[in-house]
Amino acid sequence: MKLGFFAANYAHLPLEDVAKIMTANGYEMMEIPAYIGNGQMECDEILQGNNAHKLKKMLAGYGIEISALSNHADSILILGPWGEDTDALYQGTKEEKIKYGTQSLIRTAQAANALEVSVVNGFTGVTNWGRYFPFPCAQGWEWMEKDFVELFVPILDKFKEYGVKFAVEPHPNNLIYDINTAKRALELVDNHPCLGYNLDPANLIYLGLRVENFIDALGERIFHVHAKDGEVVEHNIQYGGVLMQGDWQRLDKAFRFRIPGWGSVPWKKVLTELSLVGYDFVLSYEHEDVTMSVGDGVEKVAAYLKPLIIKAPYEGRKDKIFNNPRA
Amino acid sequence: MKLGFFAANYAHLPLEDVAKIMTANGYEMMEIPAYIGNGQMECDEILQGNNAHKLKKMLAGYGIEISALSNHADSILILGPWGEDTDALYQGTKEEKIKYGTQSLIRTAQAANALEVSVVNGFTGVTNWGRYFPFPCAQGWEWMEKDFVELFVPILDKFKEYGVKFAVEPHPNNLIYDINTAKRALELVDNHPCLGYNLDPANLIYLGLRVENFIDALGERIFHVHAKDGEVVEHNIQYGGVLMQGDWQRLDKAFRFRIPGWGSVPWKKVLTELSLVGYDFVLSYEHEDVTMSVGDGVEKVAAYLKPLIIKAPYEGRKDKIFNNPRA
Amino acid sequence: MKLGFFAANYAHLPLEDVAKIMTANGYEMMEIPAYIGNGQMECDEILQGNNAHKLKKMLAGYGIEISALSNHADSILILGPWGEDTDALYQGTKEEKIKYGTQSLIRTAQAANALEVSVVNGFTGVTNWGRYFPFPCAQGWEWMEKDFVELFVPILDKFKEYGVKFAVEPHPNNLIYDINTAKRALELVDNHPCLGYNLDPANLIYLGLRVENFIDALGERIFHVHAKDGEVVEHNIQYGGVLMQGDWQRLDKAFRFRIPGWGSVPWKKVLTELSLVGYDFVLSYEHEDVTMSVGDGVEKVAAYLKPLIIKAPYEGRKDKIFNNPRA
Amino acid sequence: MKLGFFAANYAHLPLEDVAKIMTANGYEMMEIPAYIGNGQMECDEILQGNNAHKLKKMLAGYGIEISALSNHADSILILGPWGEDTDALYQGTKEEKIKYGTQSLIRTAQAANALEVSVVNGFTGVTNWGRYFPFPCAQGWEWMEKDFVELFVPILDKFKEYGVKFAVEPHPNNLIYDINTAKRALELVDNHPCLGYNLDPANLIYLGLRVENFIDALGERIFHVHAKDGEVVEHNIQYGGVLMQGDWQRLDKAFRFRIPGWGSVPWKKVLTELSLVGYDFVLSYEHEDVTMSVGDGVEKVAAYLKPLIIKAPYEGRKDKIFNNPRA
Amino acid sequence: MKLGFFAANYAHLPLEDVAKIMTANGYEMMEIPAYIGNGQMECDEILQGNNAHKLKKMLAGYGIEISALSNHADSILILGPWGEDTDALYQGTKEEKIKYGTQSLIRTAQAANALEVSVVNGFTGVTNWGRYFPFPCAQGWEWMEKDFVELFVPILDKFKEYGVKFAVEPHPNNLIYDINTAKRALELVDNHPCLGYNLDPANLIYLGLRVENFIDALGERIFHVHAKDGEVVEHNIQYGGVLMQGDWQRLDKAFRFRIPGWGSVPWKKVLTELSLVGYDFVLSYEHEDVTMSVGDGVEKVAAYLKPLIIKAPYEGRKDKIFNNPRA
Amino acid sequence: MKLGFFAANYAHLPLEDVAKIMTANGYEMMEIPAYIGNGQMECDEILQGNNAHKLKKMLAGYGIEISALSNHADSILILGPWGEDTDALYQGTKEEKIKYGTQSLIRTAQAANALEVSVVNGFTGVTNWGRYFPFPCAQGWEWMEKDFVELFVPILDKFKEYGVKFAVEPHPNNLIYDINTAKRALELVDNHPCLGYNLDPANLIYLGLRVENFIDALGERIFHVHAKDGEVVEHNIQYGGVLMQGDWQRLDKAFRFRIPGWGSVPWKKVLTELSLVGYDFVLSYEHEDVTMSVGDGVEKVAAYLKPLIIKAPYEGRKDKIFNNPRA
Repeated sequence: MKLGFFAANYAHLPLEDVAKIMTANGYEMMEIPAYIGNGQMECDEILQGNNAHKLKKMLAGYGIEISALSNHADSILILGPWGEDTDALYQGTKEEKIKYGTQSLIRTAQAANALEVSVVNGFTGVTNWGRYFPFPCAQGWEWMEKDFVELFVPILDKFKEYGVKFAVEPHPNNLIYDINTAKRALELVDNHPCLGYNLDPANLIYLGLRVENFIDALGERIFHVHAKDGEVVEHNIQYGGVLMQGDWQRLDKAFRFRIPGWGSVPWKKVLTELSLVGYDFVLSYEHEDVTMSVGDGVEKVAAYLKPLIIKAPYEGRKDKIFNNPRA
Repeated sequence: MKLGFFAANYAHLPLEDVAKIMTANGYEMMEIPAYIGNGQMECDEILQGNNAHKLKKMLAGYGIEISALSNHADSILILGPWGEDTDALYQGTKEEKIKYGTQSLIRTAQAANALEVSVVNGFTGVTNWGRYFPFPCAQGWEWMEKDFVELFVPILDKFKEYGVKFAVEPHPNNLIYDINTAKRALELVDNHPCLGYNLDPANLIYLGLRVENFIDALGERIFHVHAKDGEVVEHNIQYGGVLMQGDWQRLDKAFRFRIPGWGSVPWKKVLTELSLVGYDFVLSYEHEDVTMSVGDGVEKVAAYLKPLIIKAPYEGRKDKIFNNPRA
Repeated sequence: MKLGFFAANYAHLPLEDVAKIMTANGYEMMEIPAYIGNGQMECDEILQGNNAHKLKKMLAGYGIEISALSNHADSILILGPWGEDTDALYQGTKEEKIKYGTQSLIRTAQAANALEVSVVNGFTGVTNWGRYFPFPCAQGWEWMEKDFVELFVPILDKFKEYGVKFAVEPHPNNLIYDINTAKRALELVDNHPCLGYNLDPANLIYLGLRVENFIDALGERIFHVHAKDGEVVEHNIQYGGVLMQGDWQRLDKAFRFRIPGWGSVPWKKVLTELSLVGYDFVLSYEHEDVTMSVGDGVEKVAAYLKPLIIKAPYEGRKDKIFNNPRA
Repeated sequence: MKLGFFAANYAHLPLEDVAKIMTANGYEMMEIPAYIGNGQMECDEILQGNNAHKLKKMLAGYGIEISALSNHADSILILGPWGEDTDALYQGTKEEKIKYGTQSLIRTAQAANALEVSVVNGFTGVTNWGRYFPFPCAQGWEWMEKDFVELFVPILDKFKEYGVKFAVEPHPNNLIYDINTAKRALELVDNHPCLGYNLDPANLIYLGLRVENFIDALGERIFHVHAKDGEVVEHNIQYGGVLMQGDWQRLDKAFRFRIPGWGSVPWKKVLTELSLVGYDFVLSYEHEDVTMSVGDGVEKVAAYLKPLIIKAPYEGRKDKIFNNPRA
Repeated sequence: MKLGFFAANYAHLPLEDVAKIMTANGYEMMEIPAYIGNGQMECDEILQGNNAHKLKKMLAGYGIEISALSNHADSILILGPWGEDTDALYQGTKEEKIKYGTQSLIRTAQAANALEVSVVNGFTGVTNWGRYFPFPCAQGWEWMEKDFVELFVPILDKFKEYGVKFAVEPHPNNLIYDINTAKRALELVDNHPCLGYNLDPANLIYLGLRVENFIDALGERIFHVHAKDGEVVEHNIQYGGVLMQGDWQRLDKAFRFRIPGWGSVPWKKVLTELSLVGYDFVLSYEHEDVTMSVGDGVEKVAAYLKPLIIKAPYEGRKDKIFNNPRA
Repeated sequence: MKLGFFAANYAHLPLEDVAKIMTANGYEMMEIPAYIGNGQMECDEILQGNNAHKLKKMLAGYGIEISALSNHADSILILGPWGEDTDALYQGTKEEKIKYGTQSLIRTAQAANALEVSVVNGFTGVTNWGRYFPFPCAQGWEWMEKDFVELFVPILDKFKEYGVKFAVEPHPNNLIYDINTAKRALELVDNHPCLGYNLDPANLIYLGLRVENFIDALGERIFHVHAKDGEVVEHNIQYGGVLMQGDWQRLDKAFRFRIPGWGSVPWKKVLTELSLVGYDFVLSYEHEDVTMSVGDGVEKVAAYLKPLIIKAPYEGRKDKIFNNPRA
């Protein structure tokens, strides 16, 4: 497994500057933002001339490979919400938002193809996440599942053409947000070979479920992993509750995103389970920790995660007692 | 404190039949549904002639008082969601839904006034509950708070005219759903004397917060209490998560509504805290337990809760050791 | 669901005396010991003349039905241990023990047929339970599974002839002792229609697993349920460990069998789950509580369990809000 | 075991009135306050004429026996604190306080003898409980142990003369307050036959220790048991801490005395362990619950504890399977 | 935040020797003992000639600043206990002890002023800590609060003159020992600008409260922080209880002071919360761990804490998705 | 304490190759396999000529001492199981197996003597571990204890002759497997000076007991310690149970052996307690972690455990405040 870095952690820096910081701190793979106007990489440009080649070469010069392109900002427009909630991302009617999100996502797959990157990360969006609760609208979730199939199967087919996989990041306020919905989405698209997940443990941990179970249940459909932690803030939880609204920096917030090792994710268990199901790709560090600087994170994450990476599976032992060499 | 019963538990029976069942099982107060078309009591009818008097008299004949009128179904239209999610409740444009909900809620207050009932229970609705999470729309919650003030202050003023209080039931998929939002709503309406809460512990318990803290924080703004329990289903939680979508009767559901004593609510602690803050009104049993019949609940709830009711506060002890008579 | 009573709780009394005690305390079904020489009922006698009819009639006179015949003592001989460990039950060679156990078990099915009782409870035995641990003998468990198939499939076929089901009681020191082995046994006999379980929660609880999961996993293969509790003795566990050897009455024992309500079994959750999977038969109280008399148990168990029995499933609610009548 | 009642719960009522309340609610033994000026019974009077006989006869008329005389108020003067802290109990110099306490305690033993009561409950006092912590004075606890021996051995010898046992109640702010100090005190007086304990689980539970371990460790030195509960107030504990100073009725108090069943004491485990060590005397209900009236307690305690009393030990089972009749 | 070192860890060494050890192990600030006769620094000497300058210069030569002067030993005399408990610290009458403690504490402030050090650490003492419990003396705590105000306000005024702050260390057997008393003390002195706290998490953790809540509640009144841990010894707690008396090295002790990382303090949470409230001063390591040498601590503490120090707050992220630069 | 390494981790490599790996990674003591045919060291060869001297010299060249010889494979034959379960270890009748195991174990002691090694590790075996449960054979455990005394006392006497101690490793499926049986075994052999334990925390942790209590209870009878961890796999435990049979690599296994730091053993507490009871020998790393390679373990274990080793006991502090220098 390799330690990765989401370039958007330094959204205001050119990718080469990010690459330098990564190398200096031991990060080996870069996850690159790919939504329109992100300021670090535009898919349209990448698809021109030999730009893809140039980018890869520049990164290779720092010993860095690309783990994935990430299009969280535009892909969310596909299932919405389509109203004013997403106007900051793209202004338009419902139909225009869907079209914009769809095209941007497909363009990202194209860019990934050009860069020989196998994974595109993103969201699906959700029209109204409150529908998880069957009141006042018992059919609401089903309607959204129908939309999901209609809008995403064509996209997944396009991904297939480009030889790229779509890794949805299960996330609060998104159609796919837990183990059940992740399994259900695969059912809904008849196990389309291009649908899988970008596992971000921070996004799951507040639900009380176990990330290890996600890994066992989704196994080879885990295409990418975020090294991000979530802290159930124990001294706030009992009067705040896990779903507390308001600014991330409220002192009394009962849940916060954190860097790995500072939250509630049992990383050794997560890495063990990933190893057992054969995941051997990237742990891509994304910084959304509201309690410390990205600079703190860059150092602390590498120091924490590097020594935990499992390099090889058990080889068994062949002697009178055990005699169980492993495949 | 008295044991109450939500008439809608037997939504298909006339109120007098409900009253008979109540009396036979030791329930002393009735909470009556008041949304339009509920089938048991129409506000418009109550306001005609001496119908209010007749209803009270009929109930008094069974030794029953009315604890509250409840208008959950129409009040939810005020903040929405206004689209197809609420079409089963009332079909119309956003504006029409708001108007319908507002008028129905005010009419309920009028009926309460006629019946000399001091509390009307209801919801506020919520445009998009997913906005609790500040992505993709960081301002979304604030917008909804603005709507809340604009739409509800006039309603609360009307309630004041009728001498009736509005008890919002904090609930998932509602603008007010935890301790923070309950406190915030009071702030937003400058502590309007007619705004308070119908505490339903089941609606809070899945968040990890403590109902006792709700009671300490909201104290005299607790106008009504539901005797409903919520079970965090421990053997499902670790792979389902507390926010699992889908039908209430999914075998693997990680959260279920239950009758008191069969869920995660610590009733002795809840009753102790209610006693300490001076709440001395009703515990109104509402049945939404998907694992057993209402008949089961009618018996089990009374048997469970009656012996737990605290009849009087501590009187202190006046002797050489303690000498601390209490006020 | 009905409250039952295992006659062997008063192993020294005739069945009619037991029936009197049962009736006086509200027990409705009797589980009758059926191993050879149990002192209360001999299968050979039951099969003679109209003895079966007489027994049923006597019990019916007390309003009592038979829930099952139980042959724990002889059935254990089938998989062993076959050495001196079982000499107190029956002395003989391995082959003689197997034959004796097999014949006694089949005879019990025959008696059940005569009594129109659908369930026979029993054990399978286990040659060496220590083999659960794969050292020193990694193949040991597999060998025992092979024996199980060879020895039990013919028995199950005989049961089929008699129209009787065999309910194995998962139990420590038995081939079937947890969820995995219970599922595995069904696989091994190709889901033979006559194999199922006598769920005794006390026998599972020390393992750390959840009885609720057993119920979900085995569902309709639960043919009979024991009302027996097991207490993980919290103040001893940390230095004793759950598998402590020695006499049941050691003061420092870290695990003890108890009557329902006095141990670690979450009975409300167990009864809820049984109700959800459609189990509607018996809760048969077996006394092995080493801390109190059977007389204590007879009273306390009925008082504890009767009010917890769920009488009917949820009927749903048909009004504007819910509109979800259940099947 | 019998259910008892501490007469001081109704400190303002004559004993006969208390007896009537007890009988009406099923209490069988009375614990009588015996410190000077308690208002219900003066030892000096009891020792005159046939007053002892009259009192016993009056109580017998209500079916009530005396479980113990209790002298908590005066006995505390013996080890202090001797300054202004105890002036409300008795004003005087250190020497005068010691003398007063000693004489009152011995007089209580004499009265117990006259009443044929075998147990006197009381405290030892403590000069400065803060000395449990070895700073600023590492020797302080040892000094107090020395005082304990010097002052109490003569008293215990007097008790021996009267054939009465002294049951110290381990309690916060007292020399004996946990398992260690209870065992240590016995060591210090060479296991004097008249020293033992009045186990009040409420006084131990806040320390994190287990009452069950107290029972196992002190066994036959438990002369009397209080039915009093202590609640670690979970929603306050995390910011209050278990040793919170201030009035008992502070809403944010992290520890409160409660009636049995409403606190943190695991009563079934406590009763089981008492049964296992052979304790078969009284559970004497003392009311110090600040959240409800004594009237609430009188009803709720009897309803809660009566059904939990274990009437007889396990008799074993004599059949082919178990064959283990118990002594 | 900087890593500090309490010179008294090597109480027998001259400060320069301590400085060398500190530098070799990465400690940057020194906390210096200042009570009379501590053997490392006498305030009277510091105030003579340019001694203060010389000391600062010597330390600066090792790259070390002074975080605070600490006068725990003499300041405790002010509220006592005034009897034999403190004779080892200073022998005299109550009045003499108060005077000695007061003068020593003020002299320390003077020395701090001379050294340009802004913080003096110390205790307040407590007459009888057992008074936290309201029996036998309900007014006792109030009396001590009165003494606190009378004796400390003049001292705090003196501190103000010297431009120095007094950081009381909340501690067992001290008037200020938890969150409530720390808040209360500020109330009592009308938020005197010179009163604040030396947070030593080890001193709080045994109470069950959360250090994080202390930080949120006291915020800017935290003037200094000790890097000391406290271990609730889990395998002893259940029979020892958290308040166990006796020597610190009793094998069965249920609470022990430890070095950071070896106890129950959640350091990441503590450091996060300190960062969120803007504390940016020192973590001063004090060794009272009875299980290992100071040499062990010197190495282990630096290795454990250095990587956990948060260097800068979150800067937010400015792109299409988040657009939330932080102040 | 020194970090050790069990040579069998690389069972296929010659000891010198193992020594090189150890030195490169900071391991200081080697535990050498000594059962017949282990492939790394044969006792018979060691006893010839100056082979013992040569081996010690070779290891000394790498700075390595021998902590113990380990004969787990043959010693298990002594108490069995004697049937087919141990045929892979040695084929023969019960008597032949006992003889073979006994002789191999004594030969190992002889080799230890020759190598000047004071400890031999091994097992005792167990005829049928299922007998821990008193059904179907209540006397079974007692029979095995009798065998243990008869078969092992002569062996221990031989060990005494050779000046070597026998360290039994408490282990599942072994006569000695928890604190009780470890204490009991010493009783059974009248505290024979040569019987003690090789504490492997991984083997105990699944029972729910605390390793710290084992250390306190067995103290100086702990002759050797294995650095091996055991993980109660939390996301599997609730449906698998701690005693799950089947291959170690089943994904759903509820208990797994792990390397230190990746399981449930609280290493800091274990090391603290070892230090407190005066254990100052070896922590010998044995690899049986099925989730990662030995190469992973070699690096991770040294990095994890080295910094945790406590180098010296607390020396106390001699100043006005504490004045408690320690012996």
